[in-house]
Amino acid sequence: MNAEIIAVGSELLLGQIVNTNARFLSRQLADLGINVFYHTCVGDNPNRLKAVIKIAEERSNLLIFTGGLGPTKDDLTKETIAKHVNKRLIMNNEALQSIELYFERTNRQMTENNKKQAIVLEDSHILPNEHGMAPGMLLEGGSHAYMLLPGPPKEMEPMFLKYGYPVLRSLLQEEDVILSRVLRFFGIGEAMLETEIEDLIDAQTNPTIAPLASDGEVTLRLTAKHKQMDTALRLLDETEKQILSRVGDYFYGYDETSLMHELIKYIKDKKLTIACAESLTGGMFQQVFTAIPGAGELLKGGVVCYTNEVKENVLNVQKTTIAENGVVSEQCARELAKNVASLMNADIGISFTGVAGPDELEGKPVGTVYIGISIKDEPVQVEKLNFGGTRDAIRVRSVKYGCHFLIKRLNGSQNAK
Amino acid sequence: MNAEIIAVGSELLLGQIVNTNARFLSRQLADLGINVFYHTCVGDNPNRLKAVIKIAEERSNLLIFTGGLGPTKDDLTKETIAKHVNKRLIMNNEALQSIELYFERTNRQMTENNKKQAIVLEDSHILPNEHGMAPGMLLEGGSHAYMLLPGPPKEMEPMFLKYGYPVLRSLLQEEDVILSRVLRFFGIGEAMLETEIEDLIDAQTNPTIAPLASDGEVTLRLTAKHKQMDTALRLLDETEKQILSRVGDYFYGYDETSLMHELIKYIKDKKLTIACAESLTGGMFQQVFTAIPGAGELLKGGVVCYTNEVKENVLNVQKTTIAENGVVSEQCARELAKNVASLMNADIGISFTGVAGPDELEGKPVGTVYIGISIKDEPVQVEKLNFGGTRDAIRVRSVKYGCHFLIKRLNGSQNAK
Repeated sequence: MNAEIIAVGSELLLGQIVNTNARFLSRQLADLGINVFYHTCVGDNPNRLKAVIKIAEERSNLLIFTGGLGPTKDDLTKETIAKHVNKRLIMNNEALQSIELYFERTNRQMTENNKKQAIVLEDSHILPNEHGMAPGMLLEGGSHAYMLLPGPPKEMEPMFLKYGYPVLRSLLQEEDVILSRVLRFFGIGEAMLETEIEDLIDAQTNPTIAPLASDGEVTLRLTAKHKQMDTALRLLDETEKQILSRVGDYFYGYDETSLMHELIKYIKDKKLTIACAESLTGGMFQQVFTAIPGAGELLKGGVVCYTNEVKENVLNVQKTTIAENGVVSEQCARELAKNVASLMNADIGISFTGVAGPDELEGKPVGTVYIGISIKDEPVQVEKLNFGGTRDAIRVRSVKYGCHFLIKRLNGSQNAK
Repeated sequence: MNAEIIAVGSELLLGQIVNTNARFLSRQLADLGINVFYHTCVGDNPNRLKAVIKIAEERSNLLIFTGGLGPTKDDLTKETIAKHVNKRLIMNNEALQSIELYFERTNRQMTENNKKQAIVLEDSHILPNEHGMAPGMLLEGGSHAYMLLPGPPKEMEPMFLKYGYPVLRSLLQEEDVILSRVLRFFGIGEAMLETEIEDLIDAQTNPTIAPLASDGEVTLRLTAKHKQMDTALRLLDETEKQILSRVGDYFYGYDETSLMHELIKYIKDKKLTIACAESLTGGMFQQVFTAIPGAGELLKGGVVCYTNEVKENVLNVQKTTIAENGVVSEQCARELAKNVASLMNADIGISFTGVAGPDELEGKPVGTVYIGISIKDEPVQVEKLNFGGTRDAIRVRSVKYGCHFLIKRLNGSQNAK
């Protein structure tokens, strides 16, 4: 089965929004083993939409539409498809009730044109919208299937996962179970990781191995297919084991986790608390930390210490330390980590000091970063890094390396880099 | 002139990356007055790409390609187009030199297949790549023009702005000057703003007025067209004046600015310094502040005070304040703002305390936020807000409102909301 994803909406062609739906659906379809050969985007224009449908039918047998199911005049996806496939549009009572409930719940007044959203394609399978009004639809018509989904990602994504994915699976009459697992790596480049496991990638059939690099991390997506769930799982486990025997030192977690999520698990498991002194990162470590619900209990607090004055007066870095070594130094990182833990009465202190740019500082080049880690009475450990890239990239990398080093310390690994 | 934007790359169809290039180019083309009726995305497959080119030629006369100009075997955009339009591929010496320089500069070893990137379409106009290797091209072929751009946004965007945009303008033989201006608003919803200026939007012809809402902000994009630059400018000015006479209270800046950029201008102009106490925002205000180069000098420092212990011991909030009012209270916000300014020896203190969720706190619902502002010896001002939305949205909104209130205070406006 080959699919084409068709986004309908002039706001996309004006560049007002990015088509993230195409990406989301492409990933899901890849998981299902359905090939996606084309994405198309067309405006709110019935003639152009009709032409796009005809082209898509010639080259794909599953057409997935996003957008154009709204209440206003320029929303015309289902009207255009209905005419094209010669189906009537009929009122769906369940959808209407769900819309009425939606207005009740959000305490807003329902208008006449909202009813339009409860009108669906005759003979279609309805995909309920639990986060908005317009229901989705799947229509099977001979050699083609048409799936209609709402445009807003917060409605479309949960609808597809809960109702769209299973209905496509049943359409596929796929008897195989498809299992995916993402392995996440940090501290190794994509090229290096691929070289280490090149023979495995070249020999891949089941599971398949797909590498992807972004934001200084590399992931490998393993996808296995088998009639038996047990066997599919075993295939994943075996390939994972082979991969980790070579590059396991850089592996940090599965699927949708992040370095910060993993770090927080360690801190929680070990019943520790943490405090943070941030110079170049300016609050970013703590912001990422506290973005995770419940993490706040583990973070006693921290200090953003952009100025020398605050480093000295609030965090008690010795004047001589700064005079002799500068603030971008191992010594300063050491005192910051130790002193912030003591000021905040936390078990762990972590510090970031360095040069984010655009200008160099104290004669040290942009990208020079020191990260200090103090754990209870253990000796403070300081790591020096040299990054390339923009100001923002240097800050993001610093925070990630901070997590990475601290995870290594907490799990007792000798190989901290 | 009608354009179609064609992205070439299997990584898009697998959902590994989002097609942000289509959005970027659509905006630029809208600015140029060129209609974009379609976006298409196709994989690294010469037959499918060829078919896509044929379809595009039937419905558009400007075809803009992104991607597929790389050094590896699966990069085939220019090869496919060359065959299709019957042009030779020739080595471009300037591009080759630029690639050699690129390797020298980044201290890497050049390989034989990198030379492939210096091969261009015969008779095409070259668009130099100042941020990577593959040059862009514009080929005019009778009724159609073909623009080839590299895939990575960090190469494509600057190339298009510097070389692609002007060459398209000259292609248009457009004698009119097109000027755009974006007006940015905060503290007013999109529906409300549109209602206030509905008659202006309905009557729009020159300039056009395009509203867009995102992240709690609303923008209006004005675009004027005229033979004379002076007149186009005057048309923009007049429409802006009409709009601001109605909703000027919510206006905060032009084009690519942000609330934080505007705030930093005020603080700098008035030669002030600032310190920040962050409870629910967990460092986000300071992170956004210090993301702007040079802003660090103005931020003395700050404290992330997630725990009561740190609020009391580091920021000297009185035990009775917390016992009687809780930490999510006007009184606590007041002391935090005052005390952080004094601890950091700054002119301005700003504090954020509230409930980011997912659970309520001290019996106060998720979304309750207090923002305290202390300026020198002036009385501390505290604003209370109630937000809906996710944990992340509440934190982002809090930071924006913090900027908004502080800007209003610093420019002496009475209408702080």
